[in-house]
Amino acid sequence: MLQKATNVTWHEGAVSREQRQQLLGQKGVILWMTGLSASGKSTIACVLEQRLLERGRHAYRLDGDNIRMGLNKNLGFCAEDRAENIRRIGEVAKLFADAGTIAITSFISPYRKDRDAVRALVAEGDFIEIYINVRLEAAEQRDPKGLYKKARAGQIKGFTGIDDPYEAPETPELVIDTEQLTPDAAAEKILEYLDRLGYLSA
Amino acid sequence: MLQKATNVTWHEGAVSREQRQQLLGQKGVILWMTGLSASGKSTIACVLEQRLLERGRHAYRLDGDNIRMGLNKNLGFCAEDRAENIRRIGEVAKLFADAGTIAITSFISPYRKDRDAVRALVAEGDFIEIYINVRLEAAEQRDPKGLYKKARAGQIKGFTGIDDPYEAPETPELVIDTEQLTPDAAAEKILEYLDRLGYLSA
Repeated sequence: MLQKATNVTWHEGAVSREQRQQLLGQKGVILWMTGLSASGKSTIACVLEQRLLERGRHAYRLDGDNIRMGLNKNLGFCAEDRAENIRRIGEVAKLFADAGTIAITSFISPYRKDRDAVRALVAEGDFIEIYINVRLEAAEQRDPKGLYKKARAGQIKGFTGIDDPYEAPETPELVIDTEQLTPDAAAEKILEYLDRLGYLSA
Repeated sequence: MLQKATNVTWHEGAVSREQRQQLLGQKGVILWMTGLSASGKSTIACVLEQRLLERGRHAYRLDGDNIRMGLNKNLGFCAEDRAENIRRIGEVAKLFADAGTIAITSFISPYRKDRDAVRALVAEGDFIEIYINVRLEAAEQRDPKGLYKKARAGQIKGFTGIDDPYEAPETPELVIDTEQLTPDAAAEKILEYLDRLGYLSA
């Protein structure tokens, strides 16, 4: 149950983002994870979401499962559709942040231009780019879904890291090296960052 | 601040919607308002959102202001784009409901087919259709933005109620007659419904 804040003044008209954040006791923000397939984005996002909810923070994960089958089911994988895919995810994450929720996105989002376009949608501090870093060789060795193998065999075209580029962030807010950190440790590092910068209180 | 529920068992992997709802102390749901321009949808949505937040419930409003300028800024007003507009709003509202939030949408959404398609996206009980009912003559007399006047003058084409049909819901969960009820009374009626059906607790 949300705590009823007593220090919020209600005006006629729309509820402001500040009022909402005071009620939720947290700030809305986009945690944008980017990295190669099998870098560990989704696993870390799952752990992080759990940790946040355990601490009574409202978080929600946007990932391939709830986006590609729903909002973006009418998009393919050509360059134009890939850009539109990321744009829509960015716009939805922005709505969640506006709602005071910690929106965690876990998409490869390989192009710098597309990620920067999402960053440009929101106010400074509302977009935290988290580079989930792994060497291609290590990701390819993990290959939990056999996708790299298929890409190498030419059965998947335009696969990031194989025959399509991954443009690593140049100045991400956080870098998580998943050859060094477990998913638990990675989530902890992100939580510490959010705590330190005051996102977990209003 | 969200209350930390002690009766939630954490599993590896994704947080379930039930766990999230227990933590939030409420159920996620879509409150889909439909009605003519100037029927009072947005005003009622604003009051309702405030009332819910005052009661410590997490609600978020999707409306023209935050959708048409963002997620749906690449859509026009032809029939195909109108359907896609409502489809995307439905998918986003579904995500908010999945996140445990009470998603309040206020769009004319004139076509039964489009609204029914949104209803079909979610489980029974997750979509509450609220018909904001007003006679066309009364809406046209209100005309706060002068849109009916422009439509009558032929300066706006395809305006709902004038030269494009409004298909009233046949079996909406709620009907609000805004020639009878004030926005406050309308919001109260919706709150009573949500309370009675158990949406405001987990």
